[in-house]
This record gives sequence, structure tokens and C-alpha cells, in this order.
Amino acid sequence: MTEVTKNLKLYTGRINPDLAEKIAQHLGVSLGNIKLTTFSNGEIYARYLESVRGSDVFIVQSISGALNEALMELLIMTDAAKRASARSVTAVITHYGYSRQDKKSASREPITAKLVANLLTVAGVDRIIAVDLHQGQIQGFFDIPVNHLTALPIFADYFLAKGIENLCVVSPDVGRAKAAKKLADMLGADLAILAKARPDHNVAEVTNVIGNVEGKACIINDDMIDTAGSIDAAVKALRAQGATAIFICATHGLFSGPAYERIANVEAEEVIVCDTVPVPQEQQTGKIKVITVAPLLAKAVSNVFLEASVSELFDPDFQL
Amino acid sequence: MTEVTKNLKLYTGRINPDLAEKIAQHLGVSLGNIKLTTFSNGEIYARYLESVRGSDVFIVQSISGALNEALMELLIMTDAAKRASARSVTAVITHYGYSRQDKKSASREPITAKLVANLLTVAGVDRIIAVDLHQGQIQGFFDIPVNHLTALPIFADYFLAKGIENLCVVSPDVGRAKAAKKLADMLGADLAILAKARPDHNVAEVTNVIGNVEGKACIINDDMIDTAGSIDAAVKALRAQGATAIFICATHGLFSGPAYERIANVEAEEVIVCDTVPVPQEQQTGKIKVITVAPLLAKAVSNVFLEASVSELFDPDFQL
Amino acid sequence: MTEVTKNLKLYTGRINPDLAEKIAQHLGVSLGNIKLTTFSNGEIYARYLESVRGSDVFIVQSISGALNEALMELLIMTDAAKRASARSVTAVITHYGYSRQDKKSASREPITAKLVANLLTVAGVDRIIAVDLHQGQIQGFFDIPVNHLTALPIFADYFLAKGIENLCVVSPDVGRAKAAKKLADMLGADLAILAKARPDHNVAEVTNVIGNVEGKACIINDDMIDTAGSIDAAVKALRAQGATAIFICATHGLFSGPAYERIANVEAEEVIVCDTVPVPQEQQTGKIKVITVAPLLAKAVSNVFLEASVSELFDPDFQL
Amino acid sequence: MTEVTKNLKLYTGRINPDLAEKIAQHLGVSLGNIKLTTFSNGEIYARYLESVRGSDVFIVQSISGALNEALMELLIMTDAAKRASARSVTAVITHYGYSRQDKKSASREPITAKLVANLLTVAGVDRIIAVDLHQGQIQGFFDIPVNHLTALPIFADYFLAKGIENLCVVSPDVGRAKAAKKLADMLGADLAILAKARPDHNVAEVTNVIGNVEGKACIINDDMIDTAGSIDAAVKALRAQGATAIFICATHGLFSGPAYERIANVEAEEVIVCDTVPVPQEQQTGKIKVITVAPLLAKAVSNVFLEASVSELFDPDFQL
Amino acid sequence: MTEVTKNLKLYTGRINPDLAEKIAQHLGVSLGNIKLTTFSNGEIYARYLESVRGSDVFIVQSISGALNEALMELLIMTDAAKRASARSVTAVITHYGYSRQDKKSASREPITAKLVANLLTVAGVDRIIAVDLHQGQIQGFFDIPVNHLTALPIFADYFLAKGIENLCVVSPDVGRAKAAKKLADMLGADLAILAKARPDHNVAEVTNVIGNVEGKACIINDDMIDTAGSIDAAVKALRAQGATAIFICATHGLFSGPAYERIANVEAEEVIVCDTVPVPQEQQTGKIKVITVAPLLAKAVSNVFLEASVSELFDPDFQL
Amino acid sequence: MTEVTKNLKLYTGRINPDLAEKIAQHLGVSLGNIKLTTFSNGEIYARYLESVRGSDVFIVQSISGALNEALMELLIMTDAAKRASARSVTAVITHYGYSRQDKKSASREPITAKLVANLLTVAGVDRIIAVDLHQGQIQGFFDIPVNHLTALPIFADYFLAKGIENLCVVSPDVGRAKAAKKLADMLGADLAILAKARPDHNVAEVTNVIGNVEGKACIINDDMIDTAGSIDAAVKALRAQGATAIFICATHGLFSGPAYERIANVEAEEVIVCDTVPVPQEQQTGKIKVITVAPLLAKAVSNVFLEASVSELFDPDFQL
Repeated sequence: MTEVTKNLKLYTGRINPDLAEKIAQHLGVSLGNIKLTTFSNGEIYARYLESVRGSDVFIVQSISGALNEALMELLIMTDAAKRASARSVTAVITHYGYSRQDKKSASREPITAKLVANLLTVAGVDRIIAVDLHQGQIQGFFDIPVNHLTALPIFADYFLAKGIENLCVVSPDVGRAKAAKKLADMLGADLAILAKARPDHNVAEVTNVIGNVEGKACIINDDMIDTAGSIDAAVKALRAQGATAIFICATHGLFSGPAYERIANVEAEEVIVCDTVPVPQEQQTGKIKVITVAPLLAKAVSNVFLEASVSELFDPDFQL
Repeated sequence: MTEVTKNLKLYTGRINPDLAEKIAQHLGVSLGNIKLTTFSNGEIYARYLESVRGSDVFIVQSISGALNEALMELLIMTDAAKRASARSVTAVITHYGYSRQDKKSASREPITAKLVANLLTVAGVDRIIAVDLHQGQIQGFFDIPVNHLTALPIFADYFLAKGIENLCVVSPDVGRAKAAKKLADMLGADLAILAKARPDHNVAEVTNVIGNVEGKACIINDDMIDTAGSIDAAVKALRAQGATAIFICATHGLFSGPAYERIANVEAEEVIVCDTVPVPQEQQTGKIKVITVAPLLAKAVSNVFLEASVSELFDPDFQL
Repeated sequence: MTEVTKNLKLYTGRINPDLAEKIAQHLGVSLGNIKLTTFSNGEIYARYLESVRGSDVFIVQSISGALNEALMELLIMTDAAKRASARSVTAVITHYGYSRQDKKSASREPITAKLVANLLTVAGVDRIIAVDLHQGQIQGFFDIPVNHLTALPIFADYFLAKGIENLCVVSPDVGRAKAAKKLADMLGADLAILAKARPDHNVAEVTNVIGNVEGKACIINDDMIDTAGSIDAAVKALRAQGATAIFICATHGLFSGPAYERIANVEAEEVIVCDTVPVPQEQQTGKIKVITVAPLLAKAVSNVFLEASVSELFDPDFQL
Repeated sequence: MTEVTKNLKLYTGRINPDLAEKIAQHLGVSLGNIKLTTFSNGEIYARYLESVRGSDVFIVQSISGALNEALMELLIMTDAAKRASARSVTAVITHYGYSRQDKKSASREPITAKLVANLLTVAGVDRIIAVDLHQGQIQGFFDIPVNHLTALPIFADYFLAKGIENLCVVSPDVGRAKAAKKLADMLGADLAILAKARPDHNVAEVTNVIGNVEGKACIINDDMIDTAGSIDAAVKALRAQGATAIFICATHGLFSGPAYERIANVEAEEVIVCDTVPVPQEQQTGKIKVITVAPLLAKAVSNVFLEASVSELFDPDFQL
Repeated sequence: MTEVTKNLKLYTGRINPDLAEKIAQHLGVSLGNIKLTTFSNGEIYARYLESVRGSDVFIVQSISGALNEALMELLIMTDAAKRASARSVTAVITHYGYSRQDKKSASREPITAKLVANLLTVAGVDRIIAVDLHQGQIQGFFDIPVNHLTALPIFADYFLAKGIENLCVVSPDVGRAKAAKKLADMLGADLAILAKARPDHNVAEVTNVIGNVEGKACIINDDMIDTAGSIDAAVKALRAQGATAIFICATHGLFSGPAYERIANVEAEEVIVCDTVPVPQEQQTGKIKVITVAPLLAKAVSNVFLEASVSELFDPDFQL
Repeated sequence: MTEVTKNLKLYTGRINPDLAEKIAQHLGVSLGNIKLTTFSNGEIYARYLESVRGSDVFIVQSISGALNEALMELLIMTDAAKRASARSVTAVITHYGYSRQDKKSASREPITAKLVANLLTVAGVDRIIAVDLHQGQIQGFFDIPVNHLTALPIFADYFLAKGIENLCVVSPDVGRAKAAKKLADMLGADLAILAKARPDHNVAEVTNVIGNVEGKACIINDDMIDTAGSIDAAVKALRAQGATAIFICATHGLFSGPAYERIANVEAEEVIVCDTVPVPQEQQTGKIKVITVAPLLAKAVSNVFLEASVSELFDPDFQL
């Protein structure tokens, strides 16, 4: 009879090593030693350079940037860990790519967010830790446990620290109204909602402001900023209705395509995102501010590993 | 070498036989012959009284009322059909019970809507036809095809036929704003959103109206009416903001608990629901109107069976 | 490197909380804290009010009474426990409803006992503890371990304590002869078997006694008493053949429909059942006696949890 | 658009080719062309010598004799058929070996009958046709359709044709009483049951006759005759109670070990079995008679293939 | 009763549309209409622009070039087809990327070729058509049918048409000797094998020629040319041993990294590859020749669809 | 809170108990107590005679000799262990029968090596330890971890100890060249390859020697010796080319059919095999030498059980 012990091993894919490093520091561990290469034909290769037998392996990856490579790398790392007899593999998915393709909005579309869930499961992932999924229902795409964390309290703390009066949280469209309301409640702020409409067939789309923003400092909150395509119209509509200041915050700063240029030109005070998706250092100098989720993720990893329920320190929405 | 032929067999569970009968009439078929009994110890028993070997079996059931029995009956009917060598089983779920339990809103909750999806799949269901799921993401809870129909065009037709001016569609809370906007767009109407808030800690919750409803005929749209608990506050809030008339429409009329009484007392013109959940005849005399989805479901069954794509006659959201 | 520890958490569904409480007392633990509600629309809701992360969760439920609700409650409790990262879930099913639907006796019937097994498995149950399944073969409906306990030794002890002479165990029909013989062997008693027959086409069914019961004290043994439909004929047939006393014992006292009335009128000394199905206190005053299986179940839970094999204290049929 | 057609292809393993040939004749087809070899190292090799793409393949095999080879051959034939794109594979298992290991009778036993079901399923079998399984519950070991045929009506016809008076069907032990009663009912015969007992600890086991067989022609009915170990005691016990003639019938004549010798010496009129297990021609000359199930199996294969429900010609227990 | 018909629908991913177009021409059909886009954030989107309900969908994709995108695109196209109720999805994988990662060569490596098989299966692929997999054993990574085609006869025809005397097929390393021998047998040629060796620890690796190539025209045959890293040493070693002419042929011309440059400099007559991986037109002018596999693939698709066994026209290795 | 402990339990099937006993000795444990019987009808029965609840069970079996029984015995032992709540089951498969049937070499063949993998997995095996699989790709037939050991270093040690000069390792056919080269590299030996060819249609097959063996001591290396069918031709061909001494080594000595006779007559110095397949004592006296793999397997079992990575003591190919 031998006692069973457990080891935490934390690895990172190649998308967001800085965040992984910070999580490791918070946990007081070193990142595990793994070889990750892309061959000249494009194939990804992974090999653990130390035993993971019997360990609880946590793999930090952001499914963003070259997101298909990112996903495949995560799947390959998982396969190698399972075949090397890891006791469990937890995918710490800081940004869940394809999360917006979470239902069929038109005939004969895929539901790629579910496909990704199935791919992760078949590769051998035992548990998911994720941050601000596009919809909470994505938890139900999995039959394995999903710990769904939110950065909203981090944003709330950020704005409370600023001590701004007369705040109004603004949902950038009708589909995000619920999350915006949550942030509004945390801040004791009002709520407004933007809705695009086309007054007539051959007339350009307009952005209506539902709710009153006059004289208020507005915080537009979304789960992600992608191409920043509707930011300009949103800001102009709010300004037109008398908003006095405009902040934009979103958990995931994808900033794809013309996003940086659009943000540079928009009349907003700040654009705040988390480091769930890496933002190049040179882009963090202007309007764009990046807040880290490393303490949140480190706490989640630690609780999962220890199976101890220190958890109730957390916000009720922190579902460990 | 023998040609392969196919047969459509349409059966109904015991929750909503009237709707099933109407679907059968639209299809020009008779409902199939099945024995369904509940023994005195509560066990449900099903036996097909005719061969279903090689047939495409469609089972109409509303997971409502005694919904656990309803679900179990559907599962048992499916098991019997598969063991009797049906070629396929399509569950025509007119109301998908437990659909609101579609994510974890607090720690250590189930995701019962996903559980139900898994139960249906393990019992042998090959395809789902459903109407106005609480969230479209529930499609992704399945790996089998889901044909997700919506009754919104039926409601749009109903209100357009009334020819009311100055319409405003109202979302009863921030989470339903997207669906409300869809109906608003179909009707060329404005949009308003209700949001509950608690001004201060020891003050009662109030219902805020986000958007302008003054002088407008309001249509509150939801996917279901359950206990009708917030209807009174909603109607009063809209009246207080100057709404001239108030209609309430929802696909699924569960009307549980004190719902009928509340509706009787509310200052609304009409409450319109579909027959996806059976509404007793005696309740259909006052404010409550019931519109049938039988033609919609019959068309869906027919298209699925024939595998022919006459489909594009339909609204783009009709995802066959 | 951290040591792995384990925790036992015992929860009860709402069908048989008294038995669960007794099991907890035998184990020297408290029942776990869980919220279980039925909403007015019939949906069941479960939430664990304490961490179950990493725990071995045991859920006591009797799939009886409102048995579809009972089953669904068990499935939902399992789903919530798994998503909350329980290490394992053991369903302690004191009565396995639908167990008689364990094969197709006629064409196009379901095998609902297998369906139930699949539902439990897909919901995430890791192990079953059950008592006197209708047929032992139901163990084989599962690919997970099943610990199949029997109350026969409890009945044997009960009758041995009475010190009755000249005992004969009677199987109520040809299908239960094997279990009856087991009890007969434990008691050193004779065996007789009842067989229904129809002497001619337009003649009423009669109950034949196969074997000799003259001058004997008879113990009719069955796995369950449901509507008690054939008890009167059985007792009369035995009396007619000279039985001097008649006891009826069965593990599961469902007592559905007219069962209590029938039992009140039957010429039998006692009707003894276990508390695997709750029997209302007011029914336990007359002929009906209830013996508890709590020590048996507590021992099973304890052995499963400790993974220690103190087991051989038990009857050889106690298959832990 | 091309019409879908279907082809029936009937193959046989090497255990019971004579029965397969008879089934083919009844169906009016030729047995399919397949190479089956055992290499000198014991490995079995199978190769279809004609296309099976898109065909409905039926494989006749008796899991008896060298039953592990028989099972493995069936699994290998199934694997080859599925990889060669057969539309479906139906295993026509004339005798289901390991069927008595259908539950745990003691701790730490396997449930091999369920294991066999899982092996067949994972190899790709889509449907089972079986004859007189040891217990009907074995149907529930499968999630694929099982057509469970019975030879009881064949035996009933056989005995009715003899025109014997005063018949009594005898169950060889308490566990088979139900099947014996079915045959008794078909024949309008009485029922008796044999039960082994040990009167005292150091006394030899005796066979008690429960029921009255005096002056009756007895038919002992079982599902299989294996070593014929208890036949002698059974016959002697019946003779001692005044039985005038004794017939023994069983669907599956395994006749393993000393069976033939024992049967030669027993005082019975006839021993009748079916050809579900091959009986060597030289053994069919004395007491042993073999009746074919080929017409029954041919009808089952035909109905399954045609998906037409001519079925109700059959005995209600013929569950196609 | 309606007849079941079937439709062939052929789609192409974006890696190798030219080959797909040629296959379509050989089949006499048009490529199906599908929208395939990559959003600016890197997400791939697919939507079928016509009904695929009930159709047999064939998707041509080469998992090469940006191979992770290629694989993900194939998976997404499959997901969309299955959810749109396609009757079956056949992946026509002209080059199976990651095929060399088919076993663990060192500890804690993945087996990515198996992972890819699992991803394809979980996404819903029903059948694979593949060309010259790195090892035939990859067929066994699937439980679905795999039709494994080979281009060797195409190469044999090519060289036979040249009418060269005194041919010797050369395996580029010890692991490919078997395939080289097959081609040698088709051509009636000799066989030689190259083996890398390091004569001593601090000495450079040399390429040994095992077998006699003096005075012979050598054909180096491999399944793929990737970086062409060992081609120069191989050619020099053969020349040194007296080879009179050197041809290089391989099914898959990946030509990654410095491959084109290396090939330009090597002293070989020709480098012949198939179009399973697209080779830019501008690279096909010098030594590199591309032969199409379109007729082979068209025949395979046709046979699979028609389920007719015209097949035996083929080479015995053509395993339809 | 209780600490989790673990127990190693080592059992053996009935094929290779001597090797199992040696492994046990190396581990310092006793072989576990299990009842294994074959009934006279051929059915195998297994029962653990001690608790395995919560234990890590290792089952040593060689799938050789009566290999279908061997496989079935292993599956049944696994089923019993899992149902008895073993924590894990590791199959220590010293010879993996059917490993040569690892791909389709002709149409409509099975891939029995994959079928075996699926059978093991569905029976409940959690991990495989295997020795010199016919192809390393068989690892990828499993989704569970496979520890693939090789006896090559054992052979290398054996020959190095002999101190023979001028060694040449010979692959017996083109398909084994890779393994032969590995051994050659371990020994610093040359490499030659045998290739069968048919010079003309009506001419007998000849064995060509590719490479130079003149004046060298040759070691023919294969993974197994089955019927020893081509050994004579191989030895003669090598002798004809001037080989001075010939050793034959193979991991698995199946020695089926005429193997022993052929070996007796062949002009070779020694035939060395491992004890992965039992070789009768009386055959070990002449040319045939048997080397044990017990230390290798004991080390693998120990490392797997302890989950400690002492592993790097091993050859890099020892993939624990």
C-alpha cells in the first residue's frame, strides 16, 4: 500500500506565454519544460521534456491569433500528455476562439464552438478553465466540468478606483444587454443599449441609443473587440445623445484587421482589455490599456488542483 | 436487389395530442397506433401496435405540464421504436422543458437542458425538431441535427393583420432584447427594454423602461410565460411611461401556478401564445388567445421526411 | 507533491429521506447540504450548498412513488455533482423502478430497465448500489460496477427469530421460484410454487399450488408488492391446501392502487417489507411491518468508500 | 438522383455451416463466398471474395464448440464486412455462448454474457438474431435491436403430433420454471418442478419433485443440455414419483464432456434438441433427435431484410 | 411509401481546388456551391449554399500547406454538412498531413496521425478516401471505412512508357524498402536501399548504398518529398556507385522550406510527383513534373457512391 | 478526510505463468489469487479470490498458443476486475497476437490488430504494456496509453557479450529493414536485407541478398518466428554469399506448425528468442536459446504503478 500523491505541472502553448508565466509566478511554480516546434511543412510537434506520469497537467493556451494552429497545438499537447499517462489534463483557455459560432443563425451553418468542444474532449481534455465565454451556454457544450471565470469584477474594480460620477454602462448591441447590466449593477450605474436599425430600405443603418445617456460617463462593455467595426458609430451615437466621456472595455482584445487604426481615431477616453489575448507591447502605449487576469487564473488553477474549497472568497459568479 | 422505400409514421405522446392531430391532418396522414399507459405504481408503458420496422418515426411531445413524465414517455417511446427497428426517430419537441437551465448561473448547479439533450441522444433519438428554444445555443447541446423553428413570423403576421399604428416591441428583460428586436424588425416597430433594478439596498425592486414607449402600442414578447410573475410590474411600468395599449405574446404558454389569475388582473389587451403547450379550452375565452403552429411543424416534418429542399419558401430563420 | 485525500459526502433525494437519515447515522456522518426544489411548472432544481469538489458523492434515492420525478431528480443531482467536480458519484438506488420492464415480452416494447441504466450512465453515475433488483441480470445492463445487495438474510433472521415450526416458502409465481428457494434454504424450509392456469377457455383462472403445504406455515416471498392483485387468490389457494399460517414478505412495498385495502382484507398473519420504498407511518400499524435496510446500505457505502475489504463478514451474496 | 437498392448477403462461420446452408435454401439464395482460414499459429483470417459494399450482410454463427474461436471468427468477419462498407451486419447467433454467465452470482465474477454483447457491438454488429437466450434479459445487454426467437412452438408441435395423453412439463430446476410453464400452456399440460436439496449437512443432495407427476408422461424442458449432469437424478426422481414416460427437450444440445454417455444410460424415451448447435450425424441415431430451426431463422432473416411486416403470422413471442 | 434516392454532392476545401475540379469533370458533375471564408481574426466560416439534406457529400481536401487551417476547414465543413442532415460525409483526403507522426518514437510524444483520425471521426466523417498514407497501418487508426488508394501503378505506367532499360528502384531509407520493392516488382526492376550511418562518433553521417546500382537507371521512390533534405546525399551516393540516371518520384510533393532550391541543384533527371498537394504552376517548368490522380479519385468516389462493384477493374491494391 | 492509497495486484492468465512468476519475483510481490477454469463446453470462467477494490490490477497474458482463448481469458479477467471495482487494469501483453493483421493488404480484409485493440478497450483495459509490436503504429490503435518496450537492447547485450568480430545484421525481408538497422547501430554492425523475387513467371522464387555479407557473421533479426518458413532459404542465401556464421534472433518465438523441425535442420549457430511466448523446456536444449524479459517488464510495471520517473535509466526507446 502506497500513498497516492499529486503533482501540478503547468505548461504553456506558444500563443500567450507571458500570461502563462505570470500565472506560474502567482502559483509559485515554474512553467514546465516542453519542446514545441513547427516544422517547415507546417506540422506542429510537441514533446514533454520531463515526466508527466500521474501529474495534473494544466495547459495555458489562447485560441486566438493564428487560432487554428493555436487550437491544434493545444490538442496535440493534450494527446501527448494523455499518452504519457498524465493523471488529468486541464485546458486553461484564456480566449475560446470560434465562440461566436455558437448556434446556427442561418441554414447549413456549422456550430463551430460545439465542434471545438468535441475536439477538445476527444483529444483527452478532462476539464476546461475559461474566461468570459461569448455565451454562458458554451459550458453546456461540454460534458466535462467547465470553470467559467469572468473579468467583470476586474473591470468594476478598475472603474470604481477612478471614482467617476454619473456612470452609465452601455451594451453595444441588444445581444449583450445582460452582461452590460451585470457590470452596471456592480458599479451602481445606469444602463443603456445600442440597437442598429435601418429606417428605410435605401437608407443607411443608424445606431439608436435606447435609454438616456445625457450628461453621463459611458462605459461600453463587450466580451471582445475584434475588428472594432461598430465602435465609431457607437461612440458618435453616444456623443450625439450627450455622453460626457466614453470608456470601452472588453475582456478579449483580438484587434484584428483595421482595429488598431479605428481605435486610434475614435473619440473615446480609454480602451481597456485583459491579457487573455496577447496585445503587442507597442500597442499598449496610447488609448489601449491591458489588465491582467493572471491572479484570477492562478487562483482557479490552484483551487482545481487542491480540490479544497477556499473558493467562497470569490464573487458568486466565479464558478469553481 | 430490392429497392429501399421509406415510410413516415407519426405518433404522439400524451401531453399534446390535439396539436399532433392537427399536424397529422396537415400532412394528410393518420396518427400511428400506439398503446401508452401509466400503471398504478407510476411506471409508463409504451407499445407500438403496428410494425415500425424500417420506418421514419416522428414523435410529437411537449415537455411541459407533468414534464418529467412527458420526458420519460418520450424516451420510452424512442427506446421501443429503436428496438423495433425503426429506421430513424425524430423527436418533435414542441416545448423543450428545462430549457432555461442552459448554463450554470451559480456554483454547483446542473445544466439540465444539456442533460436532457444527452438523455434524448442516449435513448436513440436521431433528430430534433424544436420551436423557439430558450436560447439558440441549445442546438449546440446536440451532436444530432436540430431543426430549430420559430413562431416569430406567426406573431408578426398576427399583429400586422391588426393594422395597429405606432408599435413598440418590448423585451421583458435585458436577456431577451435580441429576440424582441427581431420581432420589432419584422413589424417595423420601435424597441424598448425593461430592466429590473434595486435603487438602494432596503428599497423595493423597480422596473425601469429603457427606451421611449410614450404614445405607443406595446407588444411584450417573450419565449414563454410561466408564472407570469413580472407581468404586472411590466405592464404598470409601460403604462406609467405612456404606453397606449399593451399586448403580450409568447410562444410557450406554460401558465403555471398563479399565472391565470395574474393574467386576468393585468391591464393588457391580449395575451397570445401558441399551442406548443396545451392551454385548456376554458382558459381560451378571455384575454388569452392561442395560435397554432401545426402548419409550421407539418411543413418541417414533411421536409425532413422527403429530404427534398422545397425549403427556401421559408423565412430565412426556418432552418431545415 | 501533495497527498490525495478523499471525502465521503452523502446526499438524499426527496423520495426516501428517512432511510437516508438512518444510513447517515449508521455511518456517523451528517447528510450533505443540498437545495432541492420543484418549480411551479414542474421543473426540478438542484444545487449543492457546499463544495463537492474531489469528493466521493453518494446519492440515496428510491425510484418509486412519483418515480419519473424521482429518477429525474437523481439524474439532475448527478449532473450537478459531476459539473461541480465530484471525484465520483454513487447512486444508492434503494428501489430500482421500471425493473420489471427488463426484457421484451411482446413485440415493439421498450426495455425500460435498460433505458434507465443508460440514462444513469450518461448523466455521469460511476457506480450503483441496489437492493434486490427484479432480476440479477440487470447488473449486466450496466458497464459500471453494480453492488447488488439482498434483503433475504434480513427476512431469514426475522423468521428464524420467530421460531416457527414446519415452514414452507412459497413462490408467488413460476418466475420467482429461484429466490423463494434461496430463502427456503436459509430457513431450512420446504418450497412450494404457485402457478396460475386457465383450465378451459371460458373458465376463470385458478391458482394451482405446486408442492405440498398441508399443515405448514407458509411464507410467500416476492421482490415487491405492487397492487397486491394476486395476493388474495394466493392466500386462499394455500389455505385450501391446508396451510396453517401465512406470512407475506417482499423487499419493496410499493403498495400502489388498491394495495392497502386488499392487504387489510387478506387472511394473512403479517406482511413484512423493507424501507427501500417509504411506507407511510399510518400504514405500519396493522398487518404491515417494515424492517430497515439501513445497516446493510451503510455497510455497503462504507466499504465502497474505504475500498477496504472487510467485506467477507457478509453473506456470500453480498457482492461488494 | 439514383435509387437506393439493397442486397441480402448471407455468410456462415465455420461452426454450423449445415444450418446456414438450410437457411439459404429456405431463402432461395446461395451462401456468400468468403475465405476463412486458421493459420498454424492459431490466428483466424477472413476475406470476403466478392463485394459487400452497400449490402445487408447476415452472418450465421453458433458460439459453441470451440466457442472462443467461434466468437472471434464472428467478430473478425464483422470487422471485415464493416471496413468493406457493408450497409449493415446482422449476427445470426444460433447459440449464444456464455449466456449463463449473465449476472454475478458471487463476488468478483465477470458478467461474460454482457462482455460478449459489448464485443459484438464494438466490432460493428448492427443487429442480433438469437434463439432461446438463457434469459430474455440478455436482450437488454444490447442497445442494438435483438430479435429473440424461440423454439418452444417447434417443440409444442412436435409433442402435439405425437398425441400423448396426460402430459406434464417438468422444469429441471427452480430457475427454469417460467419457460416450462410456457411450454405446458402450449400443450395444455400440467407443470412440475424439480428442486435440489440437501436434507442435512452430511447427507447427499436429493432431487425433490414439486408437483404431481404420477401416471403422467413427463417432458423435461430446458434451454440447453450441456454435460447432462443432473439428467439421471431428474429421471430417477420422476420415475420414483410414478412418471410413465420421460422426454427431454432443449433448444441447444451442447453435449459436452460425458453428455453422450450419460444420455445413453438414462431411462428416457427421447432427447430432442434443435440444430442451433451442430450435433454429429453419428450421435443422431439413438435416443437423440434433432429438429431444425432453419425455417424460423430464414423467416426472421427475410423479415429483417425486407422490413415488411408480414410478421404477424407468427407466434406472439416471435419478436421481429 | 416513398422510394429512397441518393444524390452525390462534391465539394472542395480551399487547398486543392484544381484537383477537385478535375475530379468533378471526370465524374461529369459540377462542384457544389459552398461559401468558405476566413474572417480577419482567423476564424474559418463555411456555409452550404444549397440543400445537402439526404445527400452523400464528398469533400476534397489536401491537409497540406497551411495544414492546420486545412484540417480545421475540413472539420468545419463536415460539421455543417452533418447538421444540415447530409446522409453521409466522405472526406477525400488527397494528402493526410501529420501522417509521419504515426507512432511514438520517443517518450512523451503525441501520435498526431491518430489524433487527426479521432478529430475527423468526432466531427462526423463517415468514410475516408486517402492516397498513399505514410503507413498502411493508418487505416487502422479509424473505425470507419478507409479506401486507401495508391499512385504506384501511375508511376509504374509513367516509367514503363519511357522504355528505360536496366532499372533499379531505390528506397531512400530502410523504412521505405517495402514500398520500393512493390514498385520494383511492377517494373521488373532491381532493388537497392539507402541507409544513413555514422562510421564513428566524430565523423559525418554517410549514405550507404545497400545493393548494386552500377550501370543502372535508378528511381528513388518515396511517399512524399518534404524539405528534400537528403536528396542530394542520396543522388551523390548513387552516382558514386555508378548509377547512370536518376529519377525521383513521390506521391506527395510538399516542397517545403528549401525544397525547390535543393531540387534545382540536384543531379537528377526528373522529379515526378502527383497533384495530391498543389504545386504552383511556375514550379512545374523545370525538373519537376506533376501527374494527376484525378481519374483514380473520381473512380473511387463513383464506386463508393454507386455501391456497385465494378471495382475489380482495378489493381488488387485498390481497396474500394 | 481519508488518505488515498494504492495497491499493486499482479495476476497471470494461463498462457505464460512462468514469465509472470518471474516478474513477480523481480517486483518482490506474490502473484494474486484468482480462479481460472475452462468448463467442458469450452467457456472460460474467472473469479478473483481476494478483494481488488481500489487496486491497480496488472494482468500478464501472452496472446499466443491457443490465442483466441488467451485473448478471451484476458478480456474476461478484465471484465471481472472492473466490475469488482479495480482502480485500473493494465494488460501486460507479452505477445500481441494478430499483430501482423495491422492493415488491409487486400480488399475486404479485416484489420484484426485494431479489432483486438477495440476489444481490450471496451472490456475496460486502462493501459497496455507490450513488447516489440509488429509495427509501432499499433500504439496508435489505442486511445489509452501504451508502453511499448523493446527487447532489442537485450539482444544487443547478448551479442556484444559474445565478442564476435565483423558482424552484419540482416533483415529477413524489406519490411523489417528499419528494426534490423536499429540493432545494427547498437552493435556497430553492417546491414543487409533479404528480398524475395521471382526472376520469371514460371521460375521458382529466389532470395536475393541486398548488401554485402561476405566473410561476416550474420544476425538475422525479426520480431517473431512463426512457422520458420523462410529461414532455410535465408540461411542458404547468406551462406552462398559467403556468410561465416549465422545467428537468428527474434523477440517472439511462436514456433508453430513445422517450425521446430525446420530449425533443427537449418545451418545456423543459434536461434535466440525471448520468453514473451512460452517455449517448452524440452525445446530449449538444442539450437534454441530463450532470454527472459522479466526484468524489463518488472521495471515497466513498477514505474507505471509508482508514477515515479526513475525511467531515464532506460534506453531512450523504452517509452514509459
